[in-house]
Amino acid sequence: MKSRIMKQFLMALSGLCVIAALVIPTAMVNASAPTVKDAGIASVQTSEEAEKKAKYVFLFIGDGMGVAQREAADLYNDAINNAEARPEANTLVMNTFPAQGMTTTYDLSSIITDSASAGTAMATGHKTISGTINMDPKFSEKYTTITETAKKNGWKVGIVSNVSMDHATPAAFYAHVATRKDYYHIALQMSRSGFDYFAGGGLLDASKGGFIPATDYFTDRGYKLVNTAEEFNKLSPADGKVYFTNPGLQDEKSMKYAMDTDGSAVTLAQMTTKGIEMLNNDTGFFMMVEGGKIDWSCHANDAAASIVDTLAFDESVAAAVDFYKQHPDETLIIVTGDHETGGLTIGFAGTGYSNYISRLKEQDDSYVAFNEKLAAFKKATPKATFDKVIPMIEDGFGIDILSDKEYKTLTDAVAKGKAKGAVDADKAAGKEASAKLEMATTPSERLILENSFKASMLSSADRAKITDVSLLYGGYEPLTVKLTTLINQKSGLAWTSYSHTGVPVQTSAIGVGAEQFNGFYDNTAIYTKMMDISGLSN
Amino acid sequence: MKSRIMKQFLMALSGLCVIAALVIPTAMVNASAPTVKDAGIASVQTSEEAEKKAKYVFLFIGDGMGVAQREAADLYNDAINNAEARPEANTLVMNTFPAQGMTTTYDLSSIITDSASAGTAMATGHKTISGTINMDPKFSEKYTTITETAKKNGWKVGIVSNVSMDHATPAAFYAHVATRKDYYHIALQMSRSGFDYFAGGGLLDASKGGFIPATDYFTDRGYKLVNTAEEFNKLSPADGKVYFTNPGLQDEKSMKYAMDTDGSAVTLAQMTTKGIEMLNNDTGFFMMVEGGKIDWSCHANDAAASIVDTLAFDESVAAAVDFYKQHPDETLIIVTGDHETGGLTIGFAGTGYSNYISRLKEQDDSYVAFNEKLAAFKKATPKATFDKVIPMIEDGFGIDILSDKEYKTLTDAVAKGKAKGAVDADKAAGKEASAKLEMATTPSERLILENSFKASMLSSADRAKITDVSLLYGGYEPLTVKLTTLINQKSGLAWTSYSHTGVPVQTSAIGVGAEQFNGFYDNTAIYTKMMDISGLSN
Repeated sequence: MKSRIMKQFLMALSGLCVIAALVIPTAMVNASAPTVKDAGIASVQTSEEAEKKAKYVFLFIGDGMGVAQREAADLYNDAINNAEARPEANTLVMNTFPAQGMTTTYDLSSIITDSASAGTAMATGHKTISGTINMDPKFSEKYTTITETAKKNGWKVGIVSNVSMDHATPAAFYAHVATRKDYYHIALQMSRSGFDYFAGGGLLDASKGGFIPATDYFTDRGYKLVNTAEEFNKLSPADGKVYFTNPGLQDEKSMKYAMDTDGSAVTLAQMTTKGIEMLNNDTGFFMMVEGGKIDWSCHANDAAASIVDTLAFDESVAAAVDFYKQHPDETLIIVTGDHETGGLTIGFAGTGYSNYISRLKEQDDSYVAFNEKLAAFKKATPKATFDKVIPMIEDGFGIDILSDKEYKTLTDAVAKGKAKGAVDADKAAGKEASAKLEMATTPSERLILENSFKASMLSSADRAKITDVSLLYGGYEPLTVKLTTLINQKSGLAWTSYSHTGVPVQTSAIGVGAEQFNGFYDNTAIYTKMMDISGLSN
Repeated sequence: MKSRIMKQFLMALSGLCVIAALVIPTAMVNASAPTVKDAGIASVQTSEEAEKKAKYVFLFIGDGMGVAQREAADLYNDAINNAEARPEANTLVMNTFPAQGMTTTYDLSSIITDSASAGTAMATGHKTISGTINMDPKFSEKYTTITETAKKNGWKVGIVSNVSMDHATPAAFYAHVATRKDYYHIALQMSRSGFDYFAGGGLLDASKGGFIPATDYFTDRGYKLVNTAEEFNKLSPADGKVYFTNPGLQDEKSMKYAMDTDGSAVTLAQMTTKGIEMLNNDTGFFMMVEGGKIDWSCHANDAAASIVDTLAFDESVAAAVDFYKQHPDETLIIVTGDHETGGLTIGFAGTGYSNYISRLKEQDDSYVAFNEKLAAFKKATPKATFDKVIPMIEDGFGIDILSDKEYKTLTDAVAKGKAKGAVDADKAAGKEASAKLEMATTPSERLILENSFKASMLSSADRAKITDVSLLYGGYEPLTVKLTTLINQKSGLAWTSYSHTGVPVQTSAIGVGAEQFNGFYDNTAIYTKMMDISGLSN
């Protein structure tokens, strides 16, 4: 992951310049945000302020991105770029925004929302049940989205996501369906939206559900379909309505994890920048940008993949901040999560008060990329024993799988080095052994990996018979999920779930009306505040 | 816990009245917090505002209280009071404050702070190492606390906590020691502080460390020592400097968990209200109130104890809000946590997207109260087998311990009731069995409890020999910690650690200058902002 790290470092540096530019205005906002005492001045000012509306509105949704996901990305960025850096370096652009609020995310089914109802809350201001997009719980009423309203008011609208474009979060900004699984009709509604710019992943059901491939509808309705980076780079507003599908997709028609890319795909930040170019006009525009695979990697309890994707998401926020700096009096940028996923925290029973987040850099592949290698291994050598997969584990995660004897030799050396009256050679050998143990398995960790390997080598029918299988592996590839869990724990991170959680998420804002996003409020208020600040009317 | 619940409900109702009173000013603050455009008006206003200082400052510290702890308390309060209530009822007073920020808590030792260095950061604005109170990492410099400065400026000062008064967080507001374990000198420094009002737990080392009992120093230095509720209730400013030790202490000279009290002790809210009466004067006062056992219960992964203590803490915040309403232009109230403890999240792999937080009401004792019962059981019947402790488990936690046969009978009944063509009687029996399973053990859960019971019955020396003992039980009573873990998981809550974590905490504020507490900032900034808003000078 070394070359990527350098790239991220350079990107972070450019992010820091943005931060430096933002620090002073932030302080000014704080100093000049009094509880006004003189009613005369206050009323004059309020009516003056009432004239000031945001006509360029960005809504960034980190799917599954809660407080812990943001902080883990921030700490990791600090740790890998400068071991001596203190966390106050605050390399995340979104953390520098002057307004920061806490947002509750529950829906009508549960304290724990899904992305469909959470997207509905933010796009329309309505609560609904899990799985439903922009309709009431009885599917009798369609709720109007802010994007539809924006379009009706003459604004341009763009939807960007690194997962499939018919997935719940992007769909919540253009579709109305009883169930998020209705991918074919979601795609048809996307083609009918008339929105100006779609960019990201593919479509999950472009043809199976109907007689005519959904992509044909896009062409019929005047969309230019673009599938290569070269064509994408040449896009200009003269091309009209566009749907760009990124090349080199990964699981479920989504873009590759940022940690898996070879640099040939277009990044979320580049799609954001191009979106600004395509949408910019004097009347106004609304752009929703989703970091969708933060959620997917958190479901799989893969912290490294989630962190690198959060950093890529933050780069896309930086792209919007570049635009904001040119139009500070007309732009509003909001960054939020639709819910937290996985119950991530920055602390693990086995590491106590210590934290070793930089150890995550040893992980070279996302869980999806490792799964692909494991599938090939299983196909080639279906009867293979655990020792055969060890080189792949050591290569992919930097974890040394020790035999009980090797483990004992190392722990004995550590004890000898720490013993009273140890000679210098013993001390040195003890330190060396201690360093080797950092990324090595204990006997019980080895056992867990060995058992999960056996489960991975079973047929899915036999795997389903394992006691507590869903609790153990959450439906994921057993060996892979135990490997990500282990490297997370060695890094001082841990998870409680393979699902979403009900912990409130952090919302950040900068620009016109941003101060409305301070405080503690529900996700439906994100819609209300955006409507108020933009002055859009239904 | 039923009668307590009713009491809490009534208290919550009175809290709601407070909330209703706060909602309108909150909205007004939002509307009147513009980014000022007209420089002329802005400068006039800023200098006008500069005159407005808070002379009554409250700092509430929920020890170990992160975002999840606050939300769990809020959801539980909703759930037990009205099963139909949606979370927007937002019964926590602290969540209604207009300013809400996120605060990083790391110290100079680790991303994960302890309470000593976190207290130092908030009391003095300086980062230090874990374990050290108000001194630099080399112990050569003493940092001045905001409480010392307040005293020097003629303000009165009060320190309230439900843990021992020489514990790290209260000590951070009056002591300077290289290590928080130096309880004797902390107590001596407390007696020398000259501060006006101490109320809460006892002292951990009132005599052992020195020749003269530390309590004598308090008397010599003019403190009135009060130990009963009756005397406490009679206290008035005419009594001068006071140290009130609550009667009926529990573990480590702390007050009992709110869920364990029989109503005879003075509550944190009552100590806050009395503190206001004792400290109120025209020059000003500073009061720190700590909910210290939120942290302790989170270390032990006891969600119910932490939640009920968080609600009691919120009642003490409500007591300060009563004062604020009478002095809105001169009061500042801040509520924060010094760090998160336990890695609590509202979601567990075994419960997925569902949540059953009201099930926690089945827990009748805190882990400490249950430990006491278990210790008596062990003493009386040291050779007892697991079946002998089952009635105590069922009584304390409402968890039914099922034999494998009982479990199979119930799950078979559920399957029969759900089978195609099931008759009504089967369906009804299935539903009944399903309800019984809700709070019953699966075979693997029973095995975990049985193993932890065996570990609890061992001598501590033998217990220490168990493989992964610290990871399994975190140094806590094995059976108790597995019981709290189990009821938490059945309620949809889970933990990742027995230690603190590095996730940022939520900070809330209301009153003069509260808007400064919006945003994302470090815990040292809490000191800086309090100093700025109070206008205190060193």
